[in-house]
Amino acid sequence: MIVELGKPVHSLPYRVLYGDTDKAGVVYYGAYMRLFEAGRTEYLRNICGTSYSELEKQGIILPVTETYCRYKSSALYDELLEIQTAVTKITRVSIRFDYRIVHSDTGKLAVQGFTVHAAVDRSGKLMKLPESLKKLLAHS
Amino acid sequence: MIVELGKPVHSLPYRVLYGDTDKAGVVYYGAYMRLFEAGRTEYLRNICGTSYSELEKQGIILPVTETYCRYKSSALYDELLEIQTAVTKITRVSIRFDYRIVHSDTGKLAVQGFTVHAAVDRSGKLMKLPESLKKLLAHS
Amino acid sequence: MIVELGKPVHSLPYRVLYGDTDKAGVVYYGAYMRLFEAGRTEYLRNICGTSYSELEKQGIILPVTETYCRYKSSALYDELLEIQTAVTKITRVSIRFDYRIVHSDTGKLAVQGFTVHAAVDRSGKLMKLPESLKKLLAHS
Amino acid sequence: MIVELGKPVHSLPYRVLYGDTDKAGVVYYGAYMRLFEAGRTEYLRNICGTSYSELEKQGIILPVTETYCRYKSSALYDELLEIQTAVTKITRVSIRFDYRIVHSDTGKLAVQGFTVHAAVDRSGKLMKLPESLKKLLAHS
Repeated sequence: MIVELGKPVHSLPYRVLYGDTDKAGVVYYGAYMRLFEAGRTEYLRNICGTSYSELEKQGIILPVTETYCRYKSSALYDELLEIQTAVTKITRVSIRFDYRIVHSDTGKLAVQGFTVHAAVDRSGKLMKLPESLKKLLAHS
Repeated sequence: MIVELGKPVHSLPYRVLYGDTDKAGVVYYGAYMRLFEAGRTEYLRNICGTSYSELEKQGIILPVTETYCRYKSSALYDELLEIQTAVTKITRVSIRFDYRIVHSDTGKLAVQGFTVHAAVDRSGKLMKLPESLKKLLAHS
Repeated sequence: MIVELGKPVHSLPYRVLYGDTDKAGVVYYGAYMRLFEAGRTEYLRNICGTSYSELEKQGIILPVTETYCRYKSSALYDELLEIQTAVTKITRVSIRFDYRIVHSDTGKLAVQGFTVHAAVDRSGKLMKLPESLKKLLAHS
Repeated sequence: MIVELGKPVHSLPYRVLYGDTDKAGVVYYGAYMRLFEAGRTEYLRNICGTSYSELEKQGIILPVTETYCRYKSSALYDELLEIQTAVTKITRVSIRFDYRIVHSDTGKLAVQGFTVHAAVDRSGKLMKLPESLKKLLAHS
């Protein structure tokens, strides 16, 4: 289920806030979904030369249809993490992003996961991935 | 700044989730904003006989313009809280809700605060509070 | 990957807050992790006759090691949802909870997913699931 | 109630995530509490030469006792904000941080607010602000 990230990979630093942690003293399991979002947003901006905001303006909405996360080692308050993001699969109707979040000081894996996205238009109707988007993802 | 709640007061039970807590083992200070929202939403539904969702459909949007919270005693994981909400001030252009969140078992105060809301129409333009809304709040 | 819930199933109502939604007007994909947590917490309390808080006091910590969620239909602001939770697998060292979150008015599926939990002691060391916990889960 | 920030001011850029927004299409009012936290954390690190994590290790805990926020203009998805933070008051037993969050492109104010913090030791007992901390804040 988990795949290698392939190339290119975008790296985004993230500093853990108090608000990300829970009473176990580590990052709450649900908080990683935001970090996945931050990772793929900056991937689109920095690797593909577009932005999700721009895609939305063009009427291309990419809702999450699936997400998975495996938790390997706890991330602590104030720790610096690195969110590694890559596009791992493109089909006619979906994109998959894979993520590895590692402890910046050691490079050790904290969590690993993916999100799958459909493409819908402004009315919420499913559509094929626009060729324009595929090109941006392919050139990445 | 803090005022008495007056009458009527709506009471809403809330069970603290792990996701509400932080590494200090208590509810994160920012998490109370959601509880204030839950309190005023159920106030509108149960005391005023409308709902914020219904008001939005009528083109009455009530964005928060101010919020204040004083933290008196920490709330713990899995603890049952009671969110007490009341409307404490209505002006031509704003509504103020006050909140007391207490520990259900002792009645002791956890936090106390308020939110102030303006009224805007669908285009985001400030407007006077509609008479229809004032009536619902007054009958409450 | 997705399995049937089996029996018993615990049902928990949940009203969607503004704070759960995002600019697409629907519940943010990451917000469901909190709802999964609420579901399994009340499962333990209401079906197993214990509580996660109680388990922690006994030194039994159940961190999430995996989570998966499939998004089927968007949940809207102020909508009433029903969180259905069941234990679907118990091994020597892990528990799996499955969740179905449905729209209360239609019973239609909003999201479906699972979490897998390991058992660790207070020092964070992996351990076998205690027999006492297995009994509570089996009697459920 | 709102005061000028004085000097020094620490500036922290922040990019708005989808997860920060709500169905009104703007940042959820409660989401700013995290941004205040990020602001004061980086103030302590970059202006005072310590970190909140380090203070906690020394047994100096600074829980929030009050927070206030005034909302002036909505922040949008994917917008770049600047979190400006300053220490505005130090008493024998408390510290106050003030925050201005501005739209990076125009410098226009989005929200303005403050947090007040007490000092407690590891057992949760209120204490006077340690002289060591006062020095770090004064040299800032």
